[in-house]
Amino acid sequence: MACACMVSCASATVDVSCSSEQSIQPPAWLHAPSLPRFNGPLKLRQSLLSPRPWVSSRFSIRCSSQKRPQYVPNTIDDPNYVRIFDTTLRDGEQSPGATLTSKEKLDIARQLAKLGVDIIEAGFPIASPDDLEAVKLIAKEVGNDVSDDGYVPVICGLARCNKADIDAAWEGVKHALRPRIHTFIATSDIHMQYKLRKSPDEVVKIASDMVSYARSLGCEDIEFSPEDAGRSNPEFLYRILEEVIKAGATTLNIPDTVGYTLPLEFGQLIANIKANTKGADNVIISTHCQNDLGLATANTLSGAANGARQLEVTINGIGERAGNASLEEVVMAIKCRGQEQMNGLRTGIQTKHIAVTSKMVTDYTGMVVQPHKAIVGANAFAHESGIHQDGMLKFKGTYEILSPDDVGLSRTDESGIVLGKHSGRHALKTRLQQLGYELDGNELDAVFQRFKAVAEKKKKLLDEDLEALLLDKVFQPSSVWALKDLQVVCGSLGLPTATVKLADVDGAEYIACSIGTGPVDAALKAVDSIIKIPVTLLEYSLSAVTEGIDAIATTRVVIRSEIAHTSMHAQTGKPVLRTFSGTGASMDVVVSSVRAYISAINKMLGFKDIQKDKTSVISTEHKVSVQ
Amino acid sequence: MACACMVSCASATVDVSCSSEQSIQPPAWLHAPSLPRFNGPLKLRQSLLSPRPWVSSRFSIRCSSQKRPQYVPNTIDDPNYVRIFDTTLRDGEQSPGATLTSKEKLDIARQLAKLGVDIIEAGFPIASPDDLEAVKLIAKEVGNDVSDDGYVPVICGLARCNKADIDAAWEGVKHALRPRIHTFIATSDIHMQYKLRKSPDEVVKIASDMVSYARSLGCEDIEFSPEDAGRSNPEFLYRILEEVIKAGATTLNIPDTVGYTLPLEFGQLIANIKANTKGADNVIISTHCQNDLGLATANTLSGAANGARQLEVTINGIGERAGNASLEEVVMAIKCRGQEQMNGLRTGIQTKHIAVTSKMVTDYTGMVVQPHKAIVGANAFAHESGIHQDGMLKFKGTYEILSPDDVGLSRTDESGIVLGKHSGRHALKTRLQQLGYELDGNELDAVFQRFKAVAEKKKKLLDEDLEALLLDKVFQPSSVWALKDLQVVCGSLGLPTATVKLADVDGAEYIACSIGTGPVDAALKAVDSIIKIPVTLLEYSLSAVTEGIDAIATTRVVIRSEIAHTSMHAQTGKPVLRTFSGTGASMDVVVSSVRAYISAINKMLGFKDIQKDKTSVISTEHKVSVQ
Repeated sequence: MACACMVSCASATVDVSCSSEQSIQPPAWLHAPSLPRFNGPLKLRQSLLSPRPWVSSRFSIRCSSQKRPQYVPNTIDDPNYVRIFDTTLRDGEQSPGATLTSKEKLDIARQLAKLGVDIIEAGFPIASPDDLEAVKLIAKEVGNDVSDDGYVPVICGLARCNKADIDAAWEGVKHALRPRIHTFIATSDIHMQYKLRKSPDEVVKIASDMVSYARSLGCEDIEFSPEDAGRSNPEFLYRILEEVIKAGATTLNIPDTVGYTLPLEFGQLIANIKANTKGADNVIISTHCQNDLGLATANTLSGAANGARQLEVTINGIGERAGNASLEEVVMAIKCRGQEQMNGLRTGIQTKHIAVTSKMVTDYTGMVVQPHKAIVGANAFAHESGIHQDGMLKFKGTYEILSPDDVGLSRTDESGIVLGKHSGRHALKTRLQQLGYELDGNELDAVFQRFKAVAEKKKKLLDEDLEALLLDKVFQPSSVWALKDLQVVCGSLGLPTATVKLADVDGAEYIACSIGTGPVDAALKAVDSIIKIPVTLLEYSLSAVTEGIDAIATTRVVIRSEIAHTSMHAQTGKPVLRTFSGTGASMDVVVSSVRAYISAINKMLGFKDIQKDKTSVISTEHKVSVQ
Repeated sequence: MACACMVSCASATVDVSCSSEQSIQPPAWLHAPSLPRFNGPLKLRQSLLSPRPWVSSRFSIRCSSQKRPQYVPNTIDDPNYVRIFDTTLRDGEQSPGATLTSKEKLDIARQLAKLGVDIIEAGFPIASPDDLEAVKLIAKEVGNDVSDDGYVPVICGLARCNKADIDAAWEGVKHALRPRIHTFIATSDIHMQYKLRKSPDEVVKIASDMVSYARSLGCEDIEFSPEDAGRSNPEFLYRILEEVIKAGATTLNIPDTVGYTLPLEFGQLIANIKANTKGADNVIISTHCQNDLGLATANTLSGAANGARQLEVTINGIGERAGNASLEEVVMAIKCRGQEQMNGLRTGIQTKHIAVTSKMVTDYTGMVVQPHKAIVGANAFAHESGIHQDGMLKFKGTYEILSPDDVGLSRTDESGIVLGKHSGRHALKTRLQQLGYELDGNELDAVFQRFKAVAEKKKKLLDEDLEALLLDKVFQPSSVWALKDLQVVCGSLGLPTATVKLADVDGAEYIACSIGTGPVDAALKAVDSIIKIPVTLLEYSLSAVTEGIDAIATTRVVIRSEIAHTSMHAQTGKPVLRTFSGTGASMDVVVSSVRAYISAINKMLGFKDIQKDKTSVISTEHKVSVQ
């Protein structure tokens, strides 16, 4: 019982197993100072670790049975509740090579709703038709999917302070039950003078007018950000914030645009704004911290300690340059230490969905996390094996304050069932559900087919294998081109040569061969000679998903078309050349690579800012291209 | 002039281009608040960015002409100088799969000395004969290489509080000009009771006796760490620290063993220890922060703000679980904000060597850094291309507070020279020197040979290509086995088949072929059938080092022998099963993979805790192995 309570204590639902303010008491023999941590170089299967009801009270995760407060834009009726604003789909997607399709954005938004994120910033709708469509889709589907307890995420769209941007943002979010427009303008002297070419008075008027305009459209939830707040004249900052509050802004977001403030400094900025801005008590103050010095999480927590009640974060901390504060670090720090160190601060995040969300964002954006990334890195919960032989096995829970279960790393099925070639469709479906993936008929069929093919060659299929197949088969853009067959000869002795057979969307087949500097080079050149769309391969990486030399390999590529695909950058307003990532999985590294390459090309062909003409499809003549 | 000053201002040498306390003044038109940052998804070649003499004075990196203070173990004659203690080779090497050979450790130690690290923790000598040898080697070579300005790093060895450990540590470090022994014992109640089975009084006596013993060996520089300090009874902590000071400890290191403290909390712990421990003013207080909540950098800085004058860090923040505070983040935060926000705090680190050091540690340990890692990630300084078309090009320096040059990312050769097949040995050598790699005759010959072979196939060789070749050819363990030839047939149509020819250390050649589930599986099975040492492939990954499908691919593998190779874990004292990483580079992914696999096997065969018998070498018969 205590276990269930610990895992779900930040849940929006009332957990009947524990009463308000109850905390888990450690056994008497483990009073106050608890066990030290033992750690070492080898990994435990996470499923071997279980929650620990006996964690020292000093570091215990308190079990609060409080519900998520009812959503009112400018106020929260619980002074300790802090909203989590996820901008993975907007700020995170601006990372180099992280372009997401509308379908991928929708998948991630659904996952963010499972996580219980209060606000989802779904995009910058004026940026491109594809961006607008994604925001609209998310507003309609995720923004109307109300949980039993009344929770539904706010869907937010970004807009600069002008009518066209705000109209596009409203067009995107208005279908949501709780739509929000987030508008911003720069407030530092140099920025106003050189980029905006406006006087401070003009900037105040624009900001105030545009907040009013957004409200006039019927949007009652308006967020305003003074860009470059940290370097703006403080008096001017208080003045413009006062004016936008008067005009109807309900959240004031303070970005650490420079990414170089220290925690005390950023906390002081938030405290000063709260103390000196008339009307600040009637709105929510928010943080948005960049990570250039590795301090985004600490700055965000410092902002919360100084009164911010909305924290802008991204999954895995992705974003431009060194990224943003990461949701998992901020949320777990609050979960772990909010009660004791932050006056009882809490969030509404269902932390057990963190691991799956992290993996989905990694797979879709291609932004990997390092093995030693806090909370979601491969080693984050890794322990040395020797610990098991230790007489203190019974204390294992205290080696960690957080358990892998808290972030959903522990598998629900711990009975040790491993799928193999005799496993049926139902067993596969059950296992995938346990891993957090709900598949319908067609998708399940596709994965089952691949599963059977792999199970013929590989004795045991572990969870990681299943996830790789899922990624390769289900989480793919709409197929324009598909790989039918591939044949390769290579090595250090001769000329690497590849032959590929592709099928287009109508099922017509095309064959080409090519030589190259290696087998992948040869195979991709053969693909190019069929598809005939000039692209540059920007990144290529491949990894085995499990131990053993017969493991499935997943490949990730990032390509850029030489025909420009552009969207607009939020801060600069300049066109941004889009890049597209693709993934593939196979036990053959060359097949895996070709699948990934074709996946990226299909994603590019589906992007809304492209002329899709069939002139790219060539005849079936067998063509040899040489570099 | 200003440029050179900025880059070298944390240098130990007097920079004649600037006088004491001088700061770079921005032009009048850029007074006080400087330009906002514009950032976007596409990368600039780092060489296009240059240092910015006009950076806003608010964020300027002050130019201090102060020398590094003379080294005295228990005191620093400059109250603002903070020592950097790097434990990449000890704590970092405990990361899963990060096993380093003695040669690799020596390379990294040399690089740490270039960086100007005050103390190098070279290892845990009692752990294995290989660990002891590495510490000894580093003490002799790096610990005696005095710079013109008198700088030479302290070489430190770790020891538990017992004579055998301390003897081994002294045996390792005593050859250094400035040897240090770092000894530790747990001080939390539970730990003392269950692990040590000692009373608090006994623990105080052991600690005090062992510090005295270490001094009795002739070591005048003793560091003591109370393990699990954060959860120890504070009064007991002050007491044991007082006693070890009396016994002769010169540095007291306070580990955040739990990795879960918040910055204010950890800072308070340091302040309390300084205030309540008799004699604390006569020793150096140190921090050692784990990163489990992503707060290690912030906690370390908070410790420094509260009086710690030694900061324990690792390159890239590697270490067990979520790793340690990362050197580059801590050092750049102090460089960037120490003057303004931390009362003038400074370090002696030559930050321009950060990029090369980071890359070397990544290559050797196999612990990759994520693209959005602060300071050293691939995207950390990435900018969108649109900025160039912007009229504000002249302000580009102010988009970043740190410039890539500050961490050595800008290449000294900016004339655009790219090497190709007509480039000679001298051009290659010059270029490698510019990249920070000094090669002697034989090593240079080996790289030049590979360079020519690749240049035959690839028109332009970029810096990344050269570094990949270097990694493949020079930074390798002593060769036991070498790949001579490889031939592969694979694809979706048939049975993947590989044939390999290997040569052993005496030049004898062996050929074998195998089928597999893919070309890499087949090739590695063929290798196994020759070498006949049972190993498990734990990790396998491959990436292209530059753009384009004809790029060089580098492969990294981690293997574990089924014959146990063990060393001892510092905290638990338990045997740790060693794993070995290997890297390879080729334009052919299969060749690259086989090279990496053989490199890992060679590294394993060179590890001191293994029986090297030649029974593993089999006959030359052509052997087909099937799973």
